[in-house]
Amino acid sequence: MGSMFGEVFRIGTWGESHGTGVGAVIDGCPARIPLSQEDIQRELDRRRPGQSDIVTPRREEDKAEILSGVLGGLTLGTPIAVSVRNKDYRSEAYDGMRHVYRPSHADFCYDAKYGIRAWAGGGRASARETVGRVAAGAVARAVMKALSPATDVLAYVSRVHRIEAEADPAEAVSRETVESSAVRTNDPAAAEKMLAAIREARAAGDSLGGIITCVVRGCPAGLGDPVFDKLEATLAHAMMSIPACRGFEVGSGFAAAGMRGSEHNDAYCIRGGRVHTVTNRSGGIQGGISNGEPIVLRLAFKPTATLMIEQRTVNDRGEETLLKGTGRHDPCVLPRAVPVVEAMAWITLCDHFLRQKTVRCAADTH
Amino acid sequence: MGSMFGEVFRIGTWGESHGTGVGAVIDGCPARIPLSQEDIQRELDRRRPGQSDIVTPRREEDKAEILSGVLGGLTLGTPIAVSVRNKDYRSEAYDGMRHVYRPSHADFCYDAKYGIRAWAGGGRASARETVGRVAAGAVARAVMKALSPATDVLAYVSRVHRIEAEADPAEAVSRETVESSAVRTNDPAAAEKMLAAIREARAAGDSLGGIITCVVRGCPAGLGDPVFDKLEATLAHAMMSIPACRGFEVGSGFAAAGMRGSEHNDAYCIRGGRVHTVTNRSGGIQGGISNGEPIVLRLAFKPTATLMIEQRTVNDRGEETLLKGTGRHDPCVLPRAVPVVEAMAWITLCDHFLRQKTVRCAADTH
Amino acid sequence: MGSMFGEVFRIGTWGESHGTGVGAVIDGCPARIPLSQEDIQRELDRRRPGQSDIVTPRREEDKAEILSGVLGGLTLGTPIAVSVRNKDYRSEAYDGMRHVYRPSHADFCYDAKYGIRAWAGGGRASARETVGRVAAGAVARAVMKALSPATDVLAYVSRVHRIEAEADPAEAVSRETVESSAVRTNDPAAAEKMLAAIREARAAGDSLGGIITCVVRGCPAGLGDPVFDKLEATLAHAMMSIPACRGFEVGSGFAAAGMRGSEHNDAYCIRGGRVHTVTNRSGGIQGGISNGEPIVLRLAFKPTATLMIEQRTVNDRGEETLLKGTGRHDPCVLPRAVPVVEAMAWITLCDHFLRQKTVRCAADTH
Amino acid sequence: MGSMFGEVFRIGTWGESHGTGVGAVIDGCPARIPLSQEDIQRELDRRRPGQSDIVTPRREEDKAEILSGVLGGLTLGTPIAVSVRNKDYRSEAYDGMRHVYRPSHADFCYDAKYGIRAWAGGGRASARETVGRVAAGAVARAVMKALSPATDVLAYVSRVHRIEAEADPAEAVSRETVESSAVRTNDPAAAEKMLAAIREARAAGDSLGGIITCVVRGCPAGLGDPVFDKLEATLAHAMMSIPACRGFEVGSGFAAAGMRGSEHNDAYCIRGGRVHTVTNRSGGIQGGISNGEPIVLRLAFKPTATLMIEQRTVNDRGEETLLKGTGRHDPCVLPRAVPVVEAMAWITLCDHFLRQKTVRCAADTH
Repeated sequence: MGSMFGEVFRIGTWGESHGTGVGAVIDGCPARIPLSQEDIQRELDRRRPGQSDIVTPRREEDKAEILSGVLGGLTLGTPIAVSVRNKDYRSEAYDGMRHVYRPSHADFCYDAKYGIRAWAGGGRASARETVGRVAAGAVARAVMKALSPATDVLAYVSRVHRIEAEADPAEAVSRETVESSAVRTNDPAAAEKMLAAIREARAAGDSLGGIITCVVRGCPAGLGDPVFDKLEATLAHAMMSIPACRGFEVGSGFAAAGMRGSEHNDAYCIRGGRVHTVTNRSGGIQGGISNGEPIVLRLAFKPTATLMIEQRTVNDRGEETLLKGTGRHDPCVLPRAVPVVEAMAWITLCDHFLRQKTVRCAADTH
Repeated sequence: MGSMFGEVFRIGTWGESHGTGVGAVIDGCPARIPLSQEDIQRELDRRRPGQSDIVTPRREEDKAEILSGVLGGLTLGTPIAVSVRNKDYRSEAYDGMRHVYRPSHADFCYDAKYGIRAWAGGGRASARETVGRVAAGAVARAVMKALSPATDVLAYVSRVHRIEAEADPAEAVSRETVESSAVRTNDPAAAEKMLAAIREARAAGDSLGGIITCVVRGCPAGLGDPVFDKLEATLAHAMMSIPACRGFEVGSGFAAAGMRGSEHNDAYCIRGGRVHTVTNRSGGIQGGISNGEPIVLRLAFKPTATLMIEQRTVNDRGEETLLKGTGRHDPCVLPRAVPVVEAMAWITLCDHFLRQKTVRCAADTH
Repeated sequence: MGSMFGEVFRIGTWGESHGTGVGAVIDGCPARIPLSQEDIQRELDRRRPGQSDIVTPRREEDKAEILSGVLGGLTLGTPIAVSVRNKDYRSEAYDGMRHVYRPSHADFCYDAKYGIRAWAGGGRASARETVGRVAAGAVARAVMKALSPATDVLAYVSRVHRIEAEADPAEAVSRETVESSAVRTNDPAAAEKMLAAIREARAAGDSLGGIITCVVRGCPAGLGDPVFDKLEATLAHAMMSIPACRGFEVGSGFAAAGMRGSEHNDAYCIRGGRVHTVTNRSGGIQGGISNGEPIVLRLAFKPTATLMIEQRTVNDRGEETLLKGTGRHDPCVLPRAVPVVEAMAWITLCDHFLRQKTVRCAADTH
Repeated sequence: MGSMFGEVFRIGTWGESHGTGVGAVIDGCPARIPLSQEDIQRELDRRRPGQSDIVTPRREEDKAEILSGVLGGLTLGTPIAVSVRNKDYRSEAYDGMRHVYRPSHADFCYDAKYGIRAWAGGGRASARETVGRVAAGAVARAVMKALSPATDVLAYVSRVHRIEAEADPAEAVSRETVESSAVRTNDPAAAEKMLAAIREARAAGDSLGGIITCVVRGCPAGLGDPVFDKLEATLAHAMMSIPACRGFEVGSGFAAAGMRGSEHNDAYCIRGGRVHTVTNRSGGIQGGISNGEPIVLRLAFKPTATLMIEQRTVNDRGEETLLKGTGRHDPCVLPRAVPVVEAMAWITLCDHFLRQKTVRCAADTH
């Protein structure tokens, strides 16, 4: 259990870091949605290792193959299976970790849970698992582009360690600016400092945490299923399942804790002939349902656990020992996590969009 | 959809604030678990209105009736239905809001989603909905007390507005201290200041936000289902579905964003004959699986949306108007949210505990 | 687990025969569907004990109370909870069976599964459990009447023991004829013989089996979700879950086993401007999807297990013993099973109808 | 939706007949179960085309590749993906059917449902889809062999057209006898007649229906989840989802309709120190739960819809036309359906076996 997500638009992913490959199956995709191999490849390329000097040099083409569910450029309504082969894995780099638990990695916990683990490259716990998410997210994006063209999802790195990017998430951020920077931030001045900080950390064998902001613009009002599947609750589920994500906020988030109601409430107004809020401290969601304003999320990521520094740990015989990381890793996971965050947002929105088709189907003429 | 939660231990809740009542059905509870009406009533009494001068004076006995699934003090393994009748509702207080959307409430969004809403008392979006959660949480707690007696969940108010309570969540907090204070905090000095702040806000017709910390002690290692149902992801889903919750952190949370890996990693050690971490920045969860250390969560709650202050808003004919709150409300939701947070933690843990029974069932002797 | 059914229109039932009551919760009902207490009561009255001299004389008013999810005669889109109190139960009649397993009842198996059972009146395994199905079926029927008014479900007793009713299920059967007979058959001549047979069996302390035919007319083409949730597969799941149901056929059913393809295939033709089949051996379903022709199901029910005749059995200490039934029972379950069969058909169709809203939502203009 | 099955042991299949391949993903497989590529290949070889002169000559090696979830011969507890490439498909044979609906096939219904279909070879509706079921069934079988070694599933052809095989399903049938006959029956005398009948039908361009009997021996008592997920209900769901299956019986099945309770009831007795039934008209299931006796199912299959005979039909422009089958097909699907039936039985049993781990986990010492 646990490798499936979504109620109507339901995805499943599979694969270990050093196995034959990774992939996803999407069940519940509507029929007759335009979808090409390229739609998926474009997103995988954004997640791929080796894009710049600040990410892992593992060489993976990450070529997606659509195995089913699409014919002549249209979805069939049947399951869409996507597979990506692993190529450049070097399990020998992990030989020393076969019996030693890497600190703040999943090794110990997988052994505690399963009594067995694919020790090479982190196995199922590797961030390589997110390939399947990104492929499924590309399908969700295609569905939304066909059924709700005004909706767009954009994520970007808003903080690396102590360096914050400046910008109003709901207004001033463009995909072009974000993608033009290796660190995927929206603020060119901050980008340089972030790159320098990441290079410095890598040189020290260390790593850095940070924050990704994700904004959904043009989301129709009415998405989200109270009470347990509130839109922010399923988004939190989606985001907190991304490796290394440690915190989730919507709208005012933790800042709300320090506010009075008279400061926090979003007054309603009429603007352009429809209902809007004057402010957006709700982050586009009220009562668990989208209100049509931009949805704004902030996600905290911890620094990469693999360090090229000697650390204290234990082995699977219960003995204390020391470990120094090997293998190839990102000193800061955030730039490559951006497309993963977007993918999880698209998947969650698409599921809620299709769920809503079953809620409001009675004529309004009673 | 959306009113059910859990995979094996699956709960459903129902009810509107001003309807006949509220309740829960639990499907998937193991057989032969000791469970009494009192186990449920005790938790409902902690959530009940009218406990102190800082909460809503609505008079509800909140008497739980177990309708099925229990015989002679033991669960039967069949669905457990629990019902609580609504008594003291005064829908006339809401007459003025029948066509007016209360700012930062769910009214507008319910209309956008459903084309209809139970306008009195917030309907399904009322915090009264959490009665069902607390009842189901009491059942989950009983299951865990029977099957994993060392596990305990404790939540408390760690911040109200600008006032922070002091304490190490994993060690120094006791249920007695927390429950002895009307504000349900662990720090008697802070409690007085919090009470004063809440009374001041109420007098001003205003409201306050804050933070609840939740700690799970004695959780067995191995709970949580990678990759989408990581323990922190399902806990985030559970907590972010609580009304007014705006942010979720596990372990280091947002602080991780500003750290280096060498500061953040939790070294392993052997203590008392078993594997422990020296620090607990992971908050008891690594790779989505519990590691046996205390699980530490922090949840941000926004200030109550209902204010006794005139606010700008719109009505359902698309006209701008003004609204001043009436009805009876908590000026700060946190004290009564504490048992709700605990309930959602128990429900999530119980579900994962039962799921784990299906994972590690092969003999270890291959 | 096991007390919920459906993917989008999801129902859960609860309750034991001699507990406080029985009921259902429906999650996923669309908003703005006209629904009244009377819609539910009418169907419950058809299932109620004490309707005629051939059914159990247990006196239950079976008064349904809608606890949530409906306002002003319209569904809210939130969970609909329906509750029915048990009144006339006489657990003392079961005292002798507390430790003795009734042959061909669920007693032994419940003990094997749960290690505990509500021994009085069969507990959860009693046919009283079907009250919740009938209530949920009435809601499903209301949804379909609003969204697909041409669709109708009709079930009737087509055989009791050796007596067969004559009629073409898809054409000649009317609800009026069926409901005018205590045995709920469509053939007045057979009805008299069936009644006589049931009375004879009851006088002998014995019971009779039979067959219910269920026909769905006006079902839109396109319902059913290949490959596992084929329409006939989910209908089989629904029907085989009814107590005492032992066999399920769609269309030609077991007769297909003795046919050649050239006899069995349904040729297509154009009639009234749309595609029809010349014959209907497929029973309205091809490839797991409805084709617009009448859906025809046949369900075999075993004779009631409770007999007023001494039978050989064992007790829960593993000793052989003898048992003679007491309590009040139907000598033939079929007349009262008719509304249960219809309820399960409505629930299954409604779920597939809503699922289909998520499949064919892209414009057809690519 | 619809391409997933199971609650805890959850399988999903994907693939079209003339696409790149077919496959399955299994989520919820316990950890540390011995599983090899050969375990899967052996079952696929039993389902493979081209085994004898009475099945389709399509040449498919059906080589299974395990892509994930297994390491060193043991399951990891993570999703197991299995893929089989399509090789010998000849879509040109289907050119004439691109716009013409084959009678009693899924073509028309897929168009009605999805507005699009993979016309070549039946697409997703092809029996080739069952490759994924057989692969997943082999995994379920491996789980049960590890966790419940006494349990065995055996299916065989008990009838072809008018020719019935003789044998007591619960006792006298051996896998060796069944597998030694190309028609997979248990009765060598009947086998010759069945083969002759199938050859005759093929020569006439026609096809034959029949019945498969499936028996589960050594099933532990206690499996099945009342009320909707009764063991026979989920088995019916599983079996009725197999292409061409039109009827399902458990135990006495339709014969129960003609019986009196005094004939039908299974008396309990003590035999070999444990509770048994003297007869087994219940077919091993009472109240939806296994009782430890052999589970006996009978499944009716219709004759293959593809005929080499001209048939009346319509095209997708709503015009009447004639069609004569081409392509390569089995004149009788039953011999190759036997491993599919076994696979669905294993999958259903394994799911219920794991579900039961969560039901009876409290100590029995209250």
